[in-house]
Amino acid sequence: MTDASVLSVQEYITKREAFINEERSLRREHARLAVLSDAEAQADRVVRKIRAEEARTIWSEENEAAENIFPGMEFLTSRDIIVKTRLFNILTKMPKGALLHAHLDAMVNTRTLLRLALEQPHMHIRVPNALSASSIKTMLPEFEVRPKEEWSTLSTLAGAFYTPGEWVPMQKARESFPEELGGPQGFDAWVIGCLTINPAEAYGTHKTTDKIWEKFANTFRVSIGLIRYQPIWSQYIREFFRTSVEDGISYIEARINFGPKTMFNAEGHNVVPAREWVLMFAEAIQVVKQEMKDSGRDGAFLGARIIYTTIRMYTPDEVEWYTEECLALKQEFPDIIAGELLYSSLGFDLVGHEDSLYPLTYYMPQLLRFKERQKELGIDVPYIFHAGETLGDGTPAENNLYDAILLGTKRIGHGFSLAKHPKLLQICKERGIAIEMCPISNEILRLTSSMPMHPLPIIVNHGIPVALCSDDPAVFGNMGLSFDYFQVLVSSELTGLTMLGQIARDSLEYSTLNPEAKAEALSAWEQSWQKFCKEVATLGA
Amino acid sequence: MTDASVLSVQEYITKREAFINEERSLRREHARLAVLSDAEAQADRVVRKIRAEEARTIWSEENEAAENIFPGMEFLTSRDIIVKTRLFNILTKMPKGALLHAHLDAMVNTRTLLRLALEQPHMHIRVPNALSASSIKTMLPEFEVRPKEEWSTLSTLAGAFYTPGEWVPMQKARESFPEELGGPQGFDAWVIGCLTINPAEAYGTHKTTDKIWEKFANTFRVSIGLIRYQPIWSQYIREFFRTSVEDGISYIEARINFGPKTMFNAEGHNVVPAREWVLMFAEAIQVVKQEMKDSGRDGAFLGARIIYTTIRMYTPDEVEWYTEECLALKQEFPDIIAGELLYSSLGFDLVGHEDSLYPLTYYMPQLLRFKERQKELGIDVPYIFHAGETLGDGTPAENNLYDAILLGTKRIGHGFSLAKHPKLLQICKERGIAIEMCPISNEILRLTSSMPMHPLPIIVNHGIPVALCSDDPAVFGNMGLSFDYFQVLVSSELTGLTMLGQIARDSLEYSTLNPEAKAEALSAWEQSWQKFCKEVATLGA
Repeated sequence: MTDASVLSVQEYITKREAFINEERSLRREHARLAVLSDAEAQADRVVRKIRAEEARTIWSEENEAAENIFPGMEFLTSRDIIVKTRLFNILTKMPKGALLHAHLDAMVNTRTLLRLALEQPHMHIRVPNALSASSIKTMLPEFEVRPKEEWSTLSTLAGAFYTPGEWVPMQKARESFPEELGGPQGFDAWVIGCLTINPAEAYGTHKTTDKIWEKFANTFRVSIGLIRYQPIWSQYIREFFRTSVEDGISYIEARINFGPKTMFNAEGHNVVPAREWVLMFAEAIQVVKQEMKDSGRDGAFLGARIIYTTIRMYTPDEVEWYTEECLALKQEFPDIIAGELLYSSLGFDLVGHEDSLYPLTYYMPQLLRFKERQKELGIDVPYIFHAGETLGDGTPAENNLYDAILLGTKRIGHGFSLAKHPKLLQICKERGIAIEMCPISNEILRLTSSMPMHPLPIIVNHGIPVALCSDDPAVFGNMGLSFDYFQVLVSSELTGLTMLGQIARDSLEYSTLNPEAKAEALSAWEQSWQKFCKEVATLGA
Repeated sequence: MTDASVLSVQEYITKREAFINEERSLRREHARLAVLSDAEAQADRVVRKIRAEEARTIWSEENEAAENIFPGMEFLTSRDIIVKTRLFNILTKMPKGALLHAHLDAMVNTRTLLRLALEQPHMHIRVPNALSASSIKTMLPEFEVRPKEEWSTLSTLAGAFYTPGEWVPMQKARESFPEELGGPQGFDAWVIGCLTINPAEAYGTHKTTDKIWEKFANTFRVSIGLIRYQPIWSQYIREFFRTSVEDGISYIEARINFGPKTMFNAEGHNVVPAREWVLMFAEAIQVVKQEMKDSGRDGAFLGARIIYTTIRMYTPDEVEWYTEECLALKQEFPDIIAGELLYSSLGFDLVGHEDSLYPLTYYMPQLLRFKERQKELGIDVPYIFHAGETLGDGTPAENNLYDAILLGTKRIGHGFSLAKHPKLLQICKERGIAIEMCPISNEILRLTSSMPMHPLPIIVNHGIPVALCSDDPAVFGNMGLSFDYFQVLVSSELTGLTMLGQIARDSLEYSTLNPEAKAEALSAWEQSWQKFCKEVATLGA
């Protein structure tokens, strides 16, 4: 026997409680448990009660509407159920703090993007072969705006009248979309299918990480031509900000992929450089802040910052070009533009499929040089690296975690495989390196099959700060942050509303906001949070 | 910037290597890397090379024989591919050390069990309703031996001649199995389908943990009547030992479920008490050891021990009855029986679906009393608890991990959710509490969807000792240990043959063998290991 003395049941219970408590005290919400307001404590109880009820009724075999149903199940097959739950309804009203991991090219509902694009007569579309009932299933469209002098007189993508690879005005292509392909609605369905991942792909035909990444990458190949057009882009960003605010997000750090190096101007010429993008971004912040002020919601949107990204598939020289552009932008655009704090400053990251593209080590001279250049210039552009978005164990891709930390990353994007690293877990905790966790993204991209299998509880139980993020919601359908918060809440008995509040708080705490702005943001969030908890508390009265 | 000074690429590389090495040095094979024999080092390289080749050829889209294929994919759909690989072939020859987590009721191939049962005229079968083409899909047979005076004159389970619930001699039921149900082969297929989990169940109709556990539990309801019959049981154990030895296992700690309290004797009376089971178990050890000796393989089988188990669904009083029986058996049967070291001594465990049955706390008075009783009697029956075989995070079932450790468990069965517990990880490492990891079992019972998602690397990278185990291979099809070793090897870049060797070594190191026997076992294993490595090394010559 291990113990010299045998305990009485009462002694055992006391010892057990202390033992469990010792471990749970590592969790970041633990310190708050002692100082919860009455409303917070009651709201947490209410949410646990509703969660338990819905687990028994909605997320169980009693619900005959769905098969193999359970809390935290596959998002794409449960989304329609989620939106009808009381729990989700509550979470949509929760103040979420910051959205820290969001790829700008996938932040707006694809139907909205389609609508924006169809308003633009410059927008053209082409396909490599004429569309037919069979080819449409695998055919990807390409979009691009054309200057007026190059507008096409073609009017259909289908049949013998279409010359493969030729541009067709998007409006005409839609209007003339053949009846047998569903007419204009068929056009919309086809394009949206190419911009999103559906359950049959994620859970059937493409259910490995490699295969779903092919489909995932294709959605960007299609959307880029729709988005990188000034008249659309500026509306797109505003729409992104507005819908985020509607979901309770008050501040955003958006990853913008600055390749290709220019976007199209209103006239359809591909000449708009990155500095113009930053100005448009800043303008969108101003516009949406003003809208909030005008509608009596001053402070609902604090602003947004850009994390400058390029793709981990370029040559080292090309990446160096991007780092230099990033530095130039940082020098030109401080936090304050036109007298207002716009938070437009930059961090730097490399994005793309870690398993199949280059690891950070491939760019090490450039990444070290980037730090040196900052020192020379006296500026600070923190690394905020993607790392560990992989199922590997010791693969070159997985080792990105070591490099991200050695290079001083401020946060880690994904960190899905971080749990495999005892030393790195310790370092993240000690140095306060927050993890931008994207549960729904991870599930759809097949790193995990459902939320109960996701490593998030490992990170949370170790006491490492976490921010929940949506990653690419236009592709996944998890617009805002309510869906990701929902999936996390229903998958863990330990995590209640108090922990979700801590995650929201930490999203601001571990943002790149300067101390003053951060204190303001936290204080505003705290007010909204108490108000929210009071409302939730009444639901259990 | 985090660092005050910027490093040169060379400085960075040096620092990086040390950084990675610091973490990897926690792994249990690390200390050996410096003292590998030439053969071991070469064998590790050969295995890595073959693994990489097979990842490119067999486990990739190049293999058109299977869909969504990848290394470590779902076992039930990849088993046929695995057995044809060179890597698997190598692993079948590897000396595996001990099998430490194995439920005796599911250790022999179901075809063998069926054959053994069909040799027994006492064996009867019944179904709740007459079989038909539609009812056979969901109908579970029940088996039981009947004393000669109660042998049935019925001869079929199907059609109007069958009275629902009546016993039919198994041999006759098989011979008369209707043509439209496939005749005798159809009988075999039906029974085997009820004793095993198939891919359509695990990955389709029953793909949640709760649902697959229903099917899993049903296989035991069917098999128990076939197994708990002295003439079969004694052959069953020998078959288990023999096939284990064939797969390179030299020592076994088998969990025997001692409920119901008696088994059937040769004449078909349900009167054989547990002490007879232990004697039969000891006899089987002697027989198989002798067989090995006779065939010039002295030492290939060192013996086996029993871990006494009962099911976590009984009342506390019933569990107390079982703990008392366990103590009585421990007192009656020391390690030495008939002058030979038979390792028949006992550990104690509670088994069954943790999520749906009682947690350890439910039996706390009994479990504490059991320790007290051992103290009184001056004997030692270590707890070797199942714990953490769940996707929960802080559920009552998941909290079994705390209780297992507080009660001084020697090892942890499964520990699937251990990774969520920073303090418990630390304690397991410090106290040398080994984890009996059952990767294929976990995957089929839907705790993980595939091996790359399994938490094993988390445990291994933390430096906690691990023993790979097959759990219930008759149900899963992972007979022996080669399949589990295979799935682990192909799912991690870090884990090579050297680590597999360490896992095998640790299976003996963390067994319940006394120091003397353990030293002998380890020394014999070491010899076999070096021989094995020499053979593997030549494959790369």
